[in-house]
Amino acid sequence: MKTEFCTELEKAVYVTGYGNCVGKTEGEGPLGDKFDTVIDDGYFAEASFEKAEVKLHKRALERALERARITVNDLDIIGAGDLLNQCVASAYAVRESNVPFVGLYGACSTMALSLGMCSMALESGFARRGAAVTSSHFGSAERQFRYPLEYGGQRPPSAQRTVTGAGAVILSTCESADIRISAVRFGRVVDFGITDINNMGGAMAPAAADTLLNYLAHGRDADLIATGDLASIGSEILYDLMAQEGVDIRSKHVDCGKMIFDADAQDVHAGGSGCGCSAAVLTAELLPRLERGEINSMLFVATGALMSPLTVQQKESIPGIAHLIRFERVEAK
Amino acid sequence: MKTEFCTELEKAVYVTGYGNCVGKTEGEGPLGDKFDTVIDDGYFAEASFEKAEVKLHKRALERALERARITVNDLDIIGAGDLLNQCVASAYAVRESNVPFVGLYGACSTMALSLGMCSMALESGFARRGAAVTSSHFGSAERQFRYPLEYGGQRPPSAQRTVTGAGAVILSTCESADIRISAVRFGRVVDFGITDINNMGGAMAPAAADTLLNYLAHGRDADLIATGDLASIGSEILYDLMAQEGVDIRSKHVDCGKMIFDADAQDVHAGGSGCGCSAAVLTAELLPRLERGEINSMLFVATGALMSPLTVQQKESIPGIAHLIRFERVEAK
Repeated sequence: MKTEFCTELEKAVYVTGYGNCVGKTEGEGPLGDKFDTVIDDGYFAEASFEKAEVKLHKRALERALERARITVNDLDIIGAGDLLNQCVASAYAVRESNVPFVGLYGACSTMALSLGMCSMALESGFARRGAAVTSSHFGSAERQFRYPLEYGGQRPPSAQRTVTGAGAVILSTCESADIRISAVRFGRVVDFGITDINNMGGAMAPAAADTLLNYLAHGRDADLIATGDLASIGSEILYDLMAQEGVDIRSKHVDCGKMIFDADAQDVHAGGSGCGCSAAVLTAELLPRLERGEINSMLFVATGALMSPLTVQQKESIPGIAHLIRFERVEAK
Repeated sequence: MKTEFCTELEKAVYVTGYGNCVGKTEGEGPLGDKFDTVIDDGYFAEASFEKAEVKLHKRALERALERARITVNDLDIIGAGDLLNQCVASAYAVRESNVPFVGLYGACSTMALSLGMCSMALESGFARRGAAVTSSHFGSAERQFRYPLEYGGQRPPSAQRTVTGAGAVILSTCESADIRISAVRFGRVVDFGITDINNMGGAMAPAAADTLLNYLAHGRDADLIATGDLASIGSEILYDLMAQEGVDIRSKHVDCGKMIFDADAQDVHAGGSGCGCSAAVLTAELLPRLERGEINSMLFVATGALMSPLTVQQKESIPGIAHLIRFERVEAK
């Protein structure tokens, strides 16, 4: 069994811009005043939740491009994905651009997957500037994965709330910035046999442990470890799995699914989830912390549950995956 | 507007193995005796079409690994995708391996997308050996995109039949072979406003034209141009769109959607489609032609329609995409 799949980038891949756009509930959470755009209306003045999600996706990318001081057609590649069947939010969001498009599917791990793919495109010389984008929407996800909102289904305490939000990051090898991506590790599919669709954190935690244990085993470390959306239950399982291998990450670990909502004050059960969760927290809170110098390095480990409603109906267990991106402050290097 | 996105690979990325597995109807078609495995039973001895598709996917990869004389854990990366919601055929097919997994969604363009992603991984040094895999299944696709087979819905002449099949290609920079990938061009999302779900060829042809015109405009050419699954109607539209720009490709063009079935003898309407269509034809017919020296270079241009049943219900038009891979015989270089 192989244990080493991490790639240290030889080129300087800079984070030249980032942006986000989130929904009302996210705007009322602990990070509310840090988001670029908060929409009050879940439909975002569109005719459906899906069209609203396309608009979230576009708005996040626009904001990231503004910060990077470039236009969409300055990009050489866009890597994007989302939770909707056939990943339509991404495809419809980019169809007005003239940029080569790599469609990705990594469930809630998509922000790290698209950052990894774009890093690879820049490292290989396929692109000089790339954008990694992803989105999710509570309304479009609930009706696709669970029930229409009107049905008012009850959810158990282990369930997570899909974040309405999108995040985008611009990477460049031809402009410099204060943050760079220095390493990428694409994750493996890990299946611990969990079959409970309301315990996504539990299904994803073993994948996060696999990716992190392999990364940290080689003497590497970072100031902050941010997992995607394990939320409260998945985070505890991650600590247990890491502890079994003698690794304690509690003091430097945060989870985007726990950060985005106030679990006591908001009706979110175990926390946030969805592609947009880690994308919005990364671009509203984590990258700014690096930029301000509060931390000098960060492992961003977004996690995904690779099931579908159909595989759950067919009694399959739920495989997870976790991709890792290492961000560094450039001065601290 | 940019016109140049093609990347010529600097490293020698060799095709060291390929394999496929198809269904009964495909086995009865013109390429029937060229496939590695033909299954008689659409369920492939499994309990559902979806589980059968997972098995097709695994069987194609196993055959490709055998030809490459390696095992799955010799791979550094697997890039795969399929048509099922949340791309579950791919995720469930690779969950027993220990290989980093990049989940991709490009609809029927996925074989070229995954080959392009793997080429990029090898060119960048992220991987030394990679596998590109994709699959589709008539039964799982019909009930997801159209109607359950039991309903017996009528289809218009422009409709295509989703191929039951999977294909896999092994790429390596550390073993040599007779065929290499020399260039990759990721396509752009192109939307000509087609809204007819039974005319996928028409929706995808503009994307194929965009990708090919850009590639050929720079003085480049090849002995054979193989599009993914435009089938009979889409191929004619492609000829028309290319002719408007003064380019005639008829004499060197083939289409995987036309090749896989006998349109006169089999009830397939406009031809084949699905991720597995171009993957199976590439690995059963096109790569062997290169290997035998019948042609020295080939552009493999798989096309995808990036819609979902929901976007069609919401009256959206159907965007297309086409990714291009250039294969060359090594001696002829």
